[in-house]
Amino acid sequence: MSESKQAIPEQSVVSMVNGAWTDHLGIRDRGLAYGDGLFETCRWVDGQLPLWSYHESRVLRDAARLFMPIDSRLLAHQQQQFCAELVRLGLLQGAVKLIVTRGQGGAGYTPLAAPSVSLIWQHIHVSQETHLAKQGLRLMKARLPLSTNAQLAGIKHLNRLDYVVAAASQPLSAGEQLLLLDAEGFPIETLHQNIFWVKNRVLCTPQLVSTGVAGVIRQIILERLAPALGLAVAVKRFPLQALLEADEVFVCNSLRGIWPVTQIEEQLWSIGPITEHLQMVEKSLWPIV
Amino acid sequence: MSESKQAIPEQSVVSMVNGAWTDHLGIRDRGLAYGDGLFETCRWVDGQLPLWSYHESRVLRDAARLFMPIDSRLLAHQQQQFCAELVRLGLLQGAVKLIVTRGQGGAGYTPLAAPSVSLIWQHIHVSQETHLAKQGLRLMKARLPLSTNAQLAGIKHLNRLDYVVAAASQPLSAGEQLLLLDAEGFPIETLHQNIFWVKNRVLCTPQLVSTGVAGVIRQIILERLAPALGLAVAVKRFPLQALLEADEVFVCNSLRGIWPVTQIEEQLWSIGPITEHLQMVEKSLWPIV
Repeated sequence: MSESKQAIPEQSVVSMVNGAWTDHLGIRDRGLAYGDGLFETCRWVDGQLPLWSYHESRVLRDAARLFMPIDSRLLAHQQQQFCAELVRLGLLQGAVKLIVTRGQGGAGYTPLAAPSVSLIWQHIHVSQETHLAKQGLRLMKARLPLSTNAQLAGIKHLNRLDYVVAAASQPLSAGEQLLLLDAEGFPIETLHQNIFWVKNRVLCTPQLVSTGVAGVIRQIILERLAPALGLAVAVKRFPLQALLEADEVFVCNSLRGIWPVTQIEEQLWSIGPITEHLQMVEKSLWPIV
Repeated sequence: MSESKQAIPEQSVVSMVNGAWTDHLGIRDRGLAYGDGLFETCRWVDGQLPLWSYHESRVLRDAARLFMPIDSRLLAHQQQQFCAELVRLGLLQGAVKLIVTRGQGGAGYTPLAAPSVSLIWQHIHVSQETHLAKQGLRLMKARLPLSTNAQLAGIKHLNRLDYVVAAASQPLSAGEQLLLLDAEGFPIETLHQNIFWVKNRVLCTPQLVSTGVAGVIRQIILERLAPALGLAVAVKRFPLQALLEADEVFVCNSLRGIWPVTQIEEQLWSIGPITEHLQMVEKSLWPIV
């Protein structure tokens, strides 16, 4: 890849809002007013978005669930426009974040019948944390629960105050991550990752029918990797005890791929063979930041 | 409430973001990214905010519940600065909307320990709907439920996607309003108002311990008006049937004050004497838009 002539400062940021190169949005946008929108955080490696087709499918599907149809050709056009500019600037690594909101207009909470959505693109620098991919994470149970709403469950929407207050109320050390539970104490995911575990060679992960974010790597593991590796899958509402009795545990998200979990509260694990196998396969299919 | 689509002259839209006269906000603000903030919509009458002390107390208290302390002197200073400008411009009626967000910064959902909040002020034109104060509203049961989270219940925070999708999925006619229920079908409030009813001279309203917005007029009715009128009060989790068997029903919010309810689904009411009395007392204490 050719280097840009212009030096890009480490914290430089590039953004595009509705096709314009700006990092500002009108304060009447419903994304700010009501959290009325959704987002994608996409792995950006060597000037490519290797998982874009998954993100694109998810955002189109979930926006429709929110009664907020997105013009798929406009989305594809802006994605290409934004990524071409990053490549031109020599910003070839990190993450591309897309926020889609319902734009402006409507009568209070009631949206326009045919809203003009806002598409907001940002390049994000991502810190190197490759040691955690090898060492694994320690999980601490969150004391504050996730919000519950069956209509919104699984969607990566902008209403994340439950995640924020859970994190704000419980500061963690390096290498630790919050394990988020629903109001009845059933494990859902971590603050930034979906969670999986293996019990008797069955790959288990919580069902996300009342809360949680159905991540892209979670989907890939369930639909592609587990079948390819001959692993049976169980997706249901598991009690916390089922997780604590697992043979091995890991978490995943689209930026970092798969990370092992070596501890939840007092319970300890070694990094398991299925975790390492999935990690290797995932990395071989899609390069990691 | 179905605000009429009155045209707003461009020049009369006045906004202030962190002390600057602008209507744009950085896209990295956590208010947009995560709905990480709260808001107030304040009645603005004859160049005054008659209910400001209530809004001010609520936003300071609820921001602290979100681990987001606000500098009360900065808030008071900006409120005076913004309102003085509206008066100078001759914009003496409508509403003043304040959005407070956790500003920028943090590691994903995890906020900074000492965030610098964003204070966003907007003047809003409000349509004249005085006929509904006399005629009353018809309520329709929402088919989609409110989100549940005990930590966030009662707070007028920016996570309102549950309200938006409920409204988007169920278009209404003029004079109609959605009655929002929790996931188990218990009545909570309407799309834009708290709800009260009278049964055997007891004033009843839903407890907001798992969802809902604890409105300023609701607080005034419970703490000031009901005692002044010698009305007993019941605040608890009521089944829908208790509401349908009421003697009279009304809704309230800070912009419109008290409006009667004359119909919920098939059930009809006349406008009740206690509703009219409360309406008269509230209007006499604080002028209405």
